[in-house]
Amino acid sequence: MSTSPEHDDRIARLESRLLAAEDQLAIGRLLAGYGPALDRGDADAASSLWTDDGEYDVEGWHMRSRDDVRAMVASPQQAALIEGGCTHLLGPARIDVDGDRAVAVCASMLVVNRDGRFVVARSGANRFELARTDAGWRIVRRTVRLLDGSPEAVALLAEA
Amino acid sequence: MSTSPEHDDRIARLESRLLAAEDQLAIGRLLAGYGPALDRGDADAASSLWTDDGEYDVEGWHMRSRDDVRAMVASPQQAALIEGGCTHLLGPARIDVDGDRAVAVCASMLVVNRDGRFVVARSGANRFELARTDAGWRIVRRTVRLLDGSPEAVALLAEA
Amino acid sequence: MSTSPEHDDRIARLESRLLAAEDQLAIGRLLAGYGPALDRGDADAASSLWTDDGEYDVEGWHMRSRDDVRAMVASPQQAALIEGGCTHLLGPARIDVDGDRAVAVCASMLVVNRDGRFVVARSGANRFELARTDAGWRIVRRTVRLLDGSPEAVALLAEA
Repeated sequence: MSTSPEHDDRIARLESRLLAAEDQLAIGRLLAGYGPALDRGDADAASSLWTDDGEYDVEGWHMRSRDDVRAMVASPQQAALIEGGCTHLLGPARIDVDGDRAVAVCASMLVVNRDGRFVVARSGANRFELARTDAGWRIVRRTVRLLDGSPEAVALLAEA
Repeated sequence: MSTSPEHDDRIARLESRLLAAEDQLAIGRLLAGYGPALDRGDADAASSLWTDDGEYDVEGWHMRSRDDVRAMVASPQQAALIEGGCTHLLGPARIDVDGDRAVAVCASMLVVNRDGRFVVARSGANRFELARTDAGWRIVRRTVRLLDGSPEAVALLAEA
Repeated sequence: MSTSPEHDDRIARLESRLLAAEDQLAIGRLLAGYGPALDRGDADAASSLWTDDGEYDVEGWHMRSRDDVRAMVASPQQAALIEGGCTHLLGPARIDVDGDRAVAVCASMLVVNRDGRFVVARSGANRFELARTDAGWRIVRRTVRLLDGSPEAVALLAEA
């Protein structure tokens, strides 16, 4: 028997709309995994969010591969931060998907424990460029700058 | 040929469920765009989240149209805030959709840079009333009050 | 007439994929309701996020049922916190669903108003274990520890 053309159309539209919803969810979920991975010092999990040659450009530290990100998370500096007490929080991201590429923009904060008090050590603008890979969405480039009035930070918040 | 009634039912249920998921995602995405638009001083982008006659009522400043919101974002006060360094963060919102109307409730924080340190300048309760328009979901009314113990702020957090 | 096997397959795949998306959204929405319910002192709404015998283990206070959670939200301590001004913010959660069980991991912050200033009173690691019930997803166990360098807090951030 042949299939119904009307059903064919409706199913095709559902498939296309669902993929768009799944993309938003998958990217949101990827980003939500960053803070916990970093704050537990899990270098493999944190770096797995990037592509092999993905970049992470955060003031004064430009990582140019997943291995670079892994090394950052496994660094003595990050261990000291965890030992003192730290929380990396990413706000909900505005995600724009265009085929197999996407841009996500959000705020991030780092709260640290200092002498028994919690203080906001950093507050920044984040821009993620992402790609759909065989393993799902991954970060191709992340740029973070402190929102301290620098025009460079403000520019990261631009729409895709 | 006629279509299968069983498939017809399943496709109709999928269409209805997917629309509900898309509504949650679309409203979440709309709200996630506010902070970045405000923190880069993009008056057109920030105000485009509202309907033409949408309202924004934030302590002592009651805007009554998209143009009013645009003027607030373009104001010297907002420019000074950006120049000093500011981050507007909205927490994940609890979204309740009822047909073509919705209510979203969440917390918001404003972190500013003061003399090289980041401090929480404001922390508030947010209530968004939204409408489905031809251009997608838009804000019909947003009310924000500082969570400083005021009963008015607490009341904004009520369920839809 | 018989139904088309090809459509049958595509519809079944859509149903399965949509359920996965709905699970992510439903759990995210459940968690987004916690802060507002707590900050308005709504003991019924806050406790309704848990199963009847759900647990909430937060430093030094181990609640072992929905009634225990209700009593915590209705306690004089929580009323005093609200009267002074408080914002409980949960960051976006990394959610892992496995059939009818799920784990969600995220950061949480408590901002309070002290003498007219807003300060981060607490910043912690959250681990939620959830179950799909007849009433939807509910919290079976939530554990929170301050991210102050304690290994116990860091361990909560582990992947599902």
